[in-house]
Amino acid sequence: MRQIEVTGTRPYRVQVGPGLLGQAAVPQRQVALICPQDLPAEFVAQVQRRLSPVVTVTVPARDDCKTLDVMAGVLSQLAQANLPRDGAVVGLGGGAVTDLAGFVAASYLRGVAFYTMPTTLLGMVDAAVGGKTGVNLPEGKNLVGAFWPPAAVWCDTDTLATLPPAVFREGAAEAYKHGLIDDPSLLPRVLHPDFRPGGPLLEGTLADAIAVKARVVSRDLTEQGERAFLNFGHTLAHALEAVTHHGIPHGEAVAYGMHYAARLSHAVYGSEAASLSTHTLNFLRWQQPAPLPELNFDDLNAFMARDKKADSDGVRFVLLRALAQPELSRVPGAVLRAEFEGWLKDMRGLGKAATPAALPG
Amino acid sequence: MRQIEVTGTRPYRVQVGPGLLGQAAVPQRQVALICPQDLPAEFVAQVQRRLSPVVTVTVPARDDCKTLDVMAGVLSQLAQANLPRDGAVVGLGGGAVTDLAGFVAASYLRGVAFYTMPTTLLGMVDAAVGGKTGVNLPEGKNLVGAFWPPAAVWCDTDTLATLPPAVFREGAAEAYKHGLIDDPSLLPRVLHPDFRPGGPLLEGTLADAIAVKARVVSRDLTEQGERAFLNFGHTLAHALEAVTHHGIPHGEAVAYGMHYAARLSHAVYGSEAASLSTHTLNFLRWQQPAPLPELNFDDLNAFMARDKKADSDGVRFVLLRALAQPELSRVPGAVLRAEFEGWLKDMRGLGKAATPAALPG
Repeated sequence: MRQIEVTGTRPYRVQVGPGLLGQAAVPQRQVALICPQDLPAEFVAQVQRRLSPVVTVTVPARDDCKTLDVMAGVLSQLAQANLPRDGAVVGLGGGAVTDLAGFVAASYLRGVAFYTMPTTLLGMVDAAVGGKTGVNLPEGKNLVGAFWPPAAVWCDTDTLATLPPAVFREGAAEAYKHGLIDDPSLLPRVLHPDFRPGGPLLEGTLADAIAVKARVVSRDLTEQGERAFLNFGHTLAHALEAVTHHGIPHGEAVAYGMHYAARLSHAVYGSEAASLSTHTLNFLRWQQPAPLPELNFDDLNAFMARDKKADSDGVRFVLLRALAQPELSRVPGAVLRAEFEGWLKDMRGLGKAATPAALPG
Repeated sequence: MRQIEVTGTRPYRVQVGPGLLGQAAVPQRQVALICPQDLPAEFVAQVQRRLSPVVTVTVPARDDCKTLDVMAGVLSQLAQANLPRDGAVVGLGGGAVTDLAGFVAASYLRGVAFYTMPTTLLGMVDAAVGGKTGVNLPEGKNLVGAFWPPAAVWCDTDTLATLPPAVFREGAAEAYKHGLIDDPSLLPRVLHPDFRPGGPLLEGTLADAIAVKARVVSRDLTEQGERAFLNFGHTLAHALEAVTHHGIPHGEAVAYGMHYAARLSHAVYGSEAASLSTHTLNFLRWQQPAPLPELNFDDLNAFMARDKKADSDGVRFVLLRALAQPELSRVPGAVLRAEFEGWLKDMRGLGKAATPAALPG
């Protein structure tokens, strides 16, 4: 079992290892459990036996739960169960459910304690650490929410064994991103065959990927500075998700977005950033995302302009001056458009070059 | 013009005086204005001329705007207007609208700057200071929200001149409450004929009533301790609002609730608290609330048990050991029921005893 300490105004601990769902303990006497309808019943039962929730709220799977409408229903169920203000909300499931559960915890009675038990790779590496909670609007992803850090996070690696391989590979995008922006030792490990459910590289790689986020978040809770670097690849990713109405899973959108950001980095910073595209293409070949639909730059650009990193002066991108050297940078519109065309060509060529020989040693 | 400083982690200033809507200034370049549909158009126009909002969102009047449904629509309009994260939300109107606007500000892009311009007595004394924002659930009032203090508050006393006298008297309940829990000098001033729109006691009484809340909030931002004292009278008030489906205006419900809390205080603390009922009855005679509908203790008690001051050990009431000596106290169920019957008799006798002779000197 590995532990990561997240420091800051409200420090908490992330535990990574097998069997954790059956070992979690919280000081609150009354707990509400929120989980998605597609979660294996044994996980829910394990947590119910351990924490005896006063109410278990089942919500739609994946991003279908991240709406204000679903949130309203969850809040009503908590109120009907009389969950008190010294109670707690526990989010069990993928990143979408823990994002929703966190915003529910932040808002119910103006804030109650929050715990997460992520059951997907994406949820463990990305959503469980950092305190960013929220739901989507019809106008875009994560446009509503709160900074509300959990009091503890349990990443039970046993839960990953039930994930379809494609979903596991999807979730690896955020771990790979942490390699690109901060810890390059993660890059070969994420692509290694032993990084798999039950594999010998799983726990350590996962813990190190989570540790990258924990370090950044510890230094910057409300996303004024370097925390924005965690959004590497996300500006295009969010736009892709928006124009396809979430037809592209988040981890695949991030993989696509990282390659676009790698190309922008090369265009802005020159030769130092030239090798980044090799890494992002290697990852895409390993991940094997579903092929992209027809895309139009202007449609995507309209969504990118609404990105949370946009301020009154325009959209800023997270770029890499070189491996592990992230920077926020404004990119001229002409460059955005030109690199989009290059990116689109690379993406069309993806299927053809998908050979294991492309993996790095 | 009077100024009140609210200290704490994010200090801000409350200004009270005439003509302030036309003098407000904010550093943010992009501003969203939220106001109720029944607000006089001249107030909206004055603020629009001054702050040039990128979007003005009109919402239903009074508590009809305090729903997650209305909030979803407001958030979408902000997103469509591309309000950036360095923008601001300005709430202009009564306490319901500023409560909604504050929760919108707290949640949009996980939090943008917030300003309030309360236009009702209730909004100025109660809702504008303290950072409590939120909306209602079908299950009860203010069950969802955030602590999100404004960056500045402008209480333009000119706006009070348009209030119907009954609405002005309704709003005085919170000012009177601040007299009971902290500053007894407010009690005769609130009931004085010169405390009226344009009257010579308006600005000073208002500022002193706001100052009570500012002092309490400055010491206790997240309502762990004495801030709960501001809820004097609110446990029954919220229950009355719930069982009547908000058929009783908040200030009238608070006036009714203060008298119940005064009776409970007498029952729990004895002779020291005996005179409180005289004050709360005097206020009710001055306020002239609409008569109560048929009420049943068990219905009300079910809602009181869901009060935010309830924790796993039961409901706590804010009581007064004596004037200006508030305490949190658990009250036995038998006392709650017995004093409810006494309260009901007092309330039935209200109309008959409504003579100016009952007002204190």
